[in-house]
Amino acid sequence: MQVGLIGLGKMGLNLALNMRDHGHEVIGYARTKETVDRAKGEGIKGVYSLEELVKKLIPPRLIWLMVPAGETVDMVINQLIPFLSKGDIIVDGGNSYYRDTLRRYEVLKAQGLRFADIGTSGGIEGARWGICAMVGAEEELFQYLEPLLKDISAPGGYLHTGPCGSGHFVKMVHNGIEYGMMQAIGEGMEILAKGPFKLDLPAIARVWRHGSVIRGWLMDLTERVLSKSGDLKDIRDVIHHSGEGLWTVEEALRLGVPVPVISLALMVRFRSEQEESFAGKVVAALRHEFGGHEVERKAPY
Amino acid sequence: MQVGLIGLGKMGLNLALNMRDHGHEVIGYARTKETVDRAKGEGIKGVYSLEELVKKLIPPRLIWLMVPAGETVDMVINQLIPFLSKGDIIVDGGNSYYRDTLRRYEVLKAQGLRFADIGTSGGIEGARWGICAMVGAEEELFQYLEPLLKDISAPGGYLHTGPCGSGHFVKMVHNGIEYGMMQAIGEGMEILAKGPFKLDLPAIARVWRHGSVIRGWLMDLTERVLSKSGDLKDIRDVIHHSGEGLWTVEEALRLGVPVPVISLALMVRFRSEQEESFAGKVVAALRHEFGGHEVERKAPY
Amino acid sequence: MQVGLIGLGKMGLNLALNMRDHGHEVIGYARTKETVDRAKGEGIKGVYSLEELVKKLIPPRLIWLMVPAGETVDMVINQLIPFLSKGDIIVDGGNSYYRDTLRRYEVLKAQGLRFADIGTSGGIEGARWGICAMVGAEEELFQYLEPLLKDISAPGGYLHTGPCGSGHFVKMVHNGIEYGMMQAIGEGMEILAKGPFKLDLPAIARVWRHGSVIRGWLMDLTERVLSKSGDLKDIRDVIHHSGEGLWTVEEALRLGVPVPVISLALMVRFRSEQEESFAGKVVAALRHEFGGHEVERKAPY
Amino acid sequence: MQVGLIGLGKMGLNLALNMRDHGHEVIGYARTKETVDRAKGEGIKGVYSLEELVKKLIPPRLIWLMVPAGETVDMVINQLIPFLSKGDIIVDGGNSYYRDTLRRYEVLKAQGLRFADIGTSGGIEGARWGICAMVGAEEELFQYLEPLLKDISAPGGYLHTGPCGSGHFVKMVHNGIEYGMMQAIGEGMEILAKGPFKLDLPAIARVWRHGSVIRGWLMDLTERVLSKSGDLKDIRDVIHHSGEGLWTVEEALRLGVPVPVISLALMVRFRSEQEESFAGKVVAALRHEFGGHEVERKAPY
Repeated sequence: MQVGLIGLGKMGLNLALNMRDHGHEVIGYARTKETVDRAKGEGIKGVYSLEELVKKLIPPRLIWLMVPAGETVDMVINQLIPFLSKGDIIVDGGNSYYRDTLRRYEVLKAQGLRFADIGTSGGIEGARWGICAMVGAEEELFQYLEPLLKDISAPGGYLHTGPCGSGHFVKMVHNGIEYGMMQAIGEGMEILAKGPFKLDLPAIARVWRHGSVIRGWLMDLTERVLSKSGDLKDIRDVIHHSGEGLWTVEEALRLGVPVPVISLALMVRFRSEQEESFAGKVVAALRHEFGGHEVERKAPY
Repeated sequence: MQVGLIGLGKMGLNLALNMRDHGHEVIGYARTKETVDRAKGEGIKGVYSLEELVKKLIPPRLIWLMVPAGETVDMVINQLIPFLSKGDIIVDGGNSYYRDTLRRYEVLKAQGLRFADIGTSGGIEGARWGICAMVGAEEELFQYLEPLLKDISAPGGYLHTGPCGSGHFVKMVHNGIEYGMMQAIGEGMEILAKGPFKLDLPAIARVWRHGSVIRGWLMDLTERVLSKSGDLKDIRDVIHHSGEGLWTVEEALRLGVPVPVISLALMVRFRSEQEESFAGKVVAALRHEFGGHEVERKAPY
Repeated sequence: MQVGLIGLGKMGLNLALNMRDHGHEVIGYARTKETVDRAKGEGIKGVYSLEELVKKLIPPRLIWLMVPAGETVDMVINQLIPFLSKGDIIVDGGNSYYRDTLRRYEVLKAQGLRFADIGTSGGIEGARWGICAMVGAEEELFQYLEPLLKDISAPGGYLHTGPCGSGHFVKMVHNGIEYGMMQAIGEGMEILAKGPFKLDLPAIARVWRHGSVIRGWLMDLTERVLSKSGDLKDIRDVIHHSGEGLWTVEEALRLGVPVPVISLALMVRFRSEQEESFAGKVVAALRHEFGGHEVERKAPY
Repeated sequence: MQVGLIGLGKMGLNLALNMRDHGHEVIGYARTKETVDRAKGEGIKGVYSLEELVKKLIPPRLIWLMVPAGETVDMVINQLIPFLSKGDIIVDGGNSYYRDTLRRYEVLKAQGLRFADIGTSGGIEGARWGICAMVGAEEELFQYLEPLLKDISAPGGYLHTGPCGSGHFVKMVHNGIEYGMMQAIGEGMEILAKGPFKLDLPAIARVWRHGSVIRGWLMDLTERVLSKSGDLKDIRDVIHHSGEGLWTVEEALRLGVPVPVISLALMVRFRSEQEESFAGKVVAALRHEFGGHEVERKAPY
């Protein structure tokens, strides 16, 4: 198929290469000339404007967005609409909030445009060698896209989850689970590192990859990061988050679903992003107030 | 090698078959005649007393315990000791608490016996087709056991973690991580089940097995259990625990390591085992007391 | 002052009596004739329609809502607006969500009406004998209401928290803290109840009321509920929630503030409201799948 | 009564003054001459050796320990034993672990000595003006001590909780609840500080002291600490812990009681004591590994 791919960052470029390797014609566009040129250097056709992109595509056009979730998606869609024709297709392969997706679907549908949301998992490597695709789309559109999806996914790695919005919803929950799993691994590794035995952490992650109950890709990655640096001493403990874990917990709250593990994994990230905790200062001050327990004061500058 | 295997339950029998398939001579013993006979039915040599078992083994004897953690291990070891000779080897392949293992090591060493702890992961299937073995043992003993370990483990799935005790320690933490991962999956599945889309849960678990960040054996199993029964309606939500998650949290507390995710996963299990929560009754009664909020009263019998 | 009080439930009636005792003229209205008549039986003037209520009030009218948060507040306000005149005052003394309050403020302001939100704490007894009032209002309106607020509050128990919305915001966080405190008390009581000593729980709650660090009204109430029934055996462990704890956690998520304790106290309530946990069933089924651990099946009907 | 008080720190000295004010004869001893002299400066009789202390006391001697929990208690008791006579009484008024108390009780009983554990709450101010005393002791001993306990406790603030050990057990759980309550307050304050309104935190703590559901001594203290410094900018967010919260969680784990709130309050303290989180580094590194998400690296020195 012919695909206009918008966004040629780490994920987008790899996805372009993945599509190209499977015989699809990819025309890439990115906000900066440098990014487009880098993609061209990798053998991807590139254009320097959305208008040019649309012109190069044969209707019904297929435009695949691989841009940061949030305002960027709205901006790109708004810029595209004037150039598009009825029946053209926009696919949002990014980590958009499913409620934004539902809103965009209505807007685009009213314009006669088709829209699919593809929750994309597998990281940068997955984008290159086979993604896991959770596809929210009308049945007909899904069938139209299926040959492409089959090519760029890991074997067995694509699913029509339901109507538009459902792909991003399922991906959101996927990431919530991922938060919990990663935090569980992190906690376990810290116990291993501080426990009574002198242990070879990379070797333990490695053996757990083979035959254990907790084997899986996250353990593969754990071995990799620990093998590079067993004590991770040059890495800060700040864990950013890109929204999906937060949305998962917000969704759970709305539904009244108890999610202690996912929410705590999220709050550990919140805490890691704080320079200091006001709550912690209050508690420290309270202890001092009633018990005279030493409170640590900051050094004067 | 020649192995005397004590304990022919789900794990023990499969391990015996695994060893046998790799050309090792297994002589099995279990507490009940029925269990021994079942193993014999599967082609495993069986004996009906510990004394007979020891007699059949050529020194230095290798006796592998696959019995429930706790008092049973002590009992079996105590019964074995009188029959054994200096240099004989006991391997504890069960889920023993590593502090018990350290204690047993000292006792056995004082008797001139050798002892190794093998944390065994992979479930029943792993026992049959390739375990993940975390081996705590003196270097010499590990090397002696290595050919057997290599045969019965998944490719790459065995590791000399360190001195006696370290194998069970590492397995304990493995299970703590497992608790957290499983709870994360459970929470995610509940959000999917209750969210705004009508979703095919087994299909989602299946697609997540292929190319996603959270792919791994637990997701393979999730697909299996959901495929058998998408709503799990005949299964109770009671999650028992066999000690290792608890010990992991206790260890973390001793070490001052924050383990919010693993400890919450454990406490969810605690709660699931309670018929009712006294804490919950107190809070419900308090709400009623200050706010007149309706409290639910039990129906009279 | 003259006050038109809408809502004569547990909180509203007590507040009416409180106002009346301090020399204020209260005219009460409630949705049902029975509720109005009950208030009349307590010596409160009552009317049977909003129109009648408004007619009896001298402009600038002061109308105090003590109705359930949510749609009821909007409904009552919408019904009132046609009868009111510029400068009339509506006070929302209920547990409204502060974002609803901000919205209502804009609507009422556009109509020339004045609006104040009063977060009201202290439970039913506080309503009768002295509330804690967190008042969001324009400065002028606050000063106008202050004599009334002073009369009906506990000594020192009212505060102008800031502009409209801030009263309900502060009350929301108050309730979040309350959730955490109550859960802490519940957990402690359960440990006492199950620990190695046979303890007199009501007596312990009583002694903690006197001189301890955790003394306070919640401990007073804890003594009361345990004194009525030391084992709470006729009370179910279902803890409902009325929204404010949920909003507190949602606000914390928006702000990126880690709130492990408040969010867990909320999730304990979620769990208590579930007949069974789907997440729990998934985890139980997973354990069974890999380890052959017994899963509890439901009895057939 | 005549009391030999060992330990004249913040708590001990205030307790001595409290006893003295009620007409009891206190003879104080502390490890350093300076501490004894400071107590003398406050009008407390002081001695410079345990031997001297014992000599000054009329049998049956009453010796009250107010020393740090743990080894110090054992050390002092061991030093005292040779000087004491049958029927003499040791009271441990500190924060000892109840299992240590049970052990000491057996040792002292075997020597013909009497022992009581008094969990003491109320902080430094309580020690001076009226404690909350949770008393574990044999009935006869409790009755013997009661007049003294009545004098030094807040009105209503002493209780015979049961046999030796129970006083420290109840105090342990008290502190667990305290951890949860304080953390709830801290979290609430942080939301207030970061929310959409500019709020006067000390004023809010103050109004919550009057008539609110969450009024109590911890809120009194919260007002105090915030009034000194509304933003707490010179206080570090490090919250140390002295053992009792940890023991409470360990006890809950042993009993299978879910304590999400108390355990999370404890783990927040653990985290606050860490310079950096190894678990956090693992998670940050994993995110980077699969998603190419920027990881923050430490600045080179």
